[in-house]
Amino acid sequence: MSLGEFDLIERFFWRPAGQGPRRAVVGNGDDCAIIAPAPGMHLAVSTDTLVEGRHFLSTVDPARLGHKALAVNLSDLAACGAKPLAFTLALTLPRVDEAWLAGFAQGLLALADAHDCELIGGDTTAGPLAIGITVMGEVPAGQTLLRSGARAGNDLWISGWPGLARLALEAFRGTLQPALTSDDFDTARRAMECPEPRVALGLALRGLASAAIDVSDGLLGDLGHLLRRSQVGATVVLDALPVHPVLAARPVSQQHDCLLAGGDDYELVFTAPPEHRARLLALGDSLGLPLTRLGAITATPGLQLLQGELDVWPDDAPPQPVSNRWTSFDHFKS
Amino acid sequence: MSLGEFDLIERFFWRPAGQGPRRAVVGNGDDCAIIAPAPGMHLAVSTDTLVEGRHFLSTVDPARLGHKALAVNLSDLAACGAKPLAFTLALTLPRVDEAWLAGFAQGLLALADAHDCELIGGDTTAGPLAIGITVMGEVPAGQTLLRSGARAGNDLWISGWPGLARLALEAFRGTLQPALTSDDFDTARRAMECPEPRVALGLALRGLASAAIDVSDGLLGDLGHLLRRSQVGATVVLDALPVHPVLAARPVSQQHDCLLAGGDDYELVFTAPPEHRARLLALGDSLGLPLTRLGAITATPGLQLLQGELDVWPDDAPPQPVSNRWTSFDHFKS
Repeated sequence: MSLGEFDLIERFFWRPAGQGPRRAVVGNGDDCAIIAPAPGMHLAVSTDTLVEGRHFLSTVDPARLGHKALAVNLSDLAACGAKPLAFTLALTLPRVDEAWLAGFAQGLLALADAHDCELIGGDTTAGPLAIGITVMGEVPAGQTLLRSGARAGNDLWISGWPGLARLALEAFRGTLQPALTSDDFDTARRAMECPEPRVALGLALRGLASAAIDVSDGLLGDLGHLLRRSQVGATVVLDALPVHPVLAARPVSQQHDCLLAGGDDYELVFTAPPEHRARLLALGDSLGLPLTRLGAITATPGLQLLQGELDVWPDDAPPQPVSNRWTSFDHFKS
Repeated sequence: MSLGEFDLIERFFWRPAGQGPRRAVVGNGDDCAIIAPAPGMHLAVSTDTLVEGRHFLSTVDPARLGHKALAVNLSDLAACGAKPLAFTLALTLPRVDEAWLAGFAQGLLALADAHDCELIGGDTTAGPLAIGITVMGEVPAGQTLLRSGARAGNDLWISGWPGLARLALEAFRGTLQPALTSDDFDTARRAMECPEPRVALGLALRGLASAAIDVSDGLLGDLGHLLRRSQVGATVVLDALPVHPVLAARPVSQQHDCLLAGGDDYELVFTAPPEHRARLLALGDSLGLPLTRLGAITATPGLQLLQGELDVWPDDAPPQPVSNRWTSFDHFKS
């Protein structure tokens, strides 16, 4: 290797003064970075590692990989209603590929800038390609969106268009019948490689949502975590799921597979009292992000899938239960 | 693999309520952990990854590895004078070896408990063995020990007994002549595998030291970082270096190699005004940790090695310059 450890971090990732967000009181280059949360603020912390071959393909564009490595961490902050402050980067690299590093840094720092989140610490080691990020955000004391706040009678909501990332993954795996058109593949691939963390939504949900979680392992799997933590159940109406046009062109069973057990969506699933419906729909409009109501929280534990209309007149047929053949996506089991 | 990702973290690393330190307002099991720094406190953040074959041998006892993975991060907090609060753990594992995980967790959490530092977040992925930790501590606003505070005329100090870890490494490499006795090998190996982060010293140095850095890449290399950040130089008197009895039994050139360019020492190098000498020596006594004065900070940049006595009478011969044949240890270059 031609570049030493210190050169590498400094050269590709540190920004000159005045460029990029400044969140640290003492920035990189000391033993620790020092950050100063605002008075009355709590600190939200999350960590996620992406490993080549497991979380991304070796052929992925490095700028998209840089984006995604931070996006999946910002998504955790979004799910807590926390505002991004700063992050650390632990890079394990098989070799020093300058073009790759420049691309990776560009994608990473562009997303960081967009969310006013400073890279405050780094560590580089030689080894099989892996990217570890720990992100820190702030949230007013007592306003964190938790998994444990869902109450019976709450509505169940999801943001955006889940399912596209799984569609792209199956296309890469060569298992998708019929094949995607080139345009549809690009759309799905972008969803998989460049997820947009729902940070603005998370901030806006403070005081509106009773509970939230981000969807990384599939809608039903992550909803299950929320339900267990809240000690409640839920009904999910299949016909209410938001179906992106690319997904709408697929066979129905494939739509359901991708929507319910997709993974890598980085949308927010959240619950809210019914009186907030109008405000939430208006919020979705103002963010340019569809917010879809797909069911309700029940006092009875467990998850029930229903087929039919979400809102029926008293004399119409209520939605009917269907069997659940989807399970969570687990990186250790798949 | 028989254990899923969620089971693995919960089973081996999460503690039941009432066991281990509690620093988080919202602990593990949500999208983020929430911590609340005390009013007036800044947050010190550092990250370090250990990769098998590069930072540790595959044969290392897992409990010692768990200890060391956290110790090297706590050492960064110590060098800033920060009190440990919490840490996140990103584990990449080639397989789920329950005995190994139990041992690793025991060593990791024992050190965490000793420093009142809570494991607040985790992430497990399959892949080549690597351990990534991000640690957070708190320090009163404006009291952080920085690398940049050294001033001409300050004394230069080091804690403990540097050099033993390098001695053990060379023994493992089979390059050490003459061979170590079995007892001496155990002592050196323990220094390499079980470094004690100088957290109590770092806290006590607030208001006493003008600058500090921890020694992970060798005394001269890390001292060089401190000098560059402070825009000063230093003299280091070889005869003043603290020589552990195990090292004292080695050839002099080997002593110097290990002391000056050893690496993995996790001692603190720090600077302080001469008027604090007596207080620092008393502090070392009270901590049971030798603190050794080895030179002085100079206005002229650069590092000068001297042979002779540290403190000479006005009429005696001053220490004489010797050539510097040691360079920093760099994980990418070695």
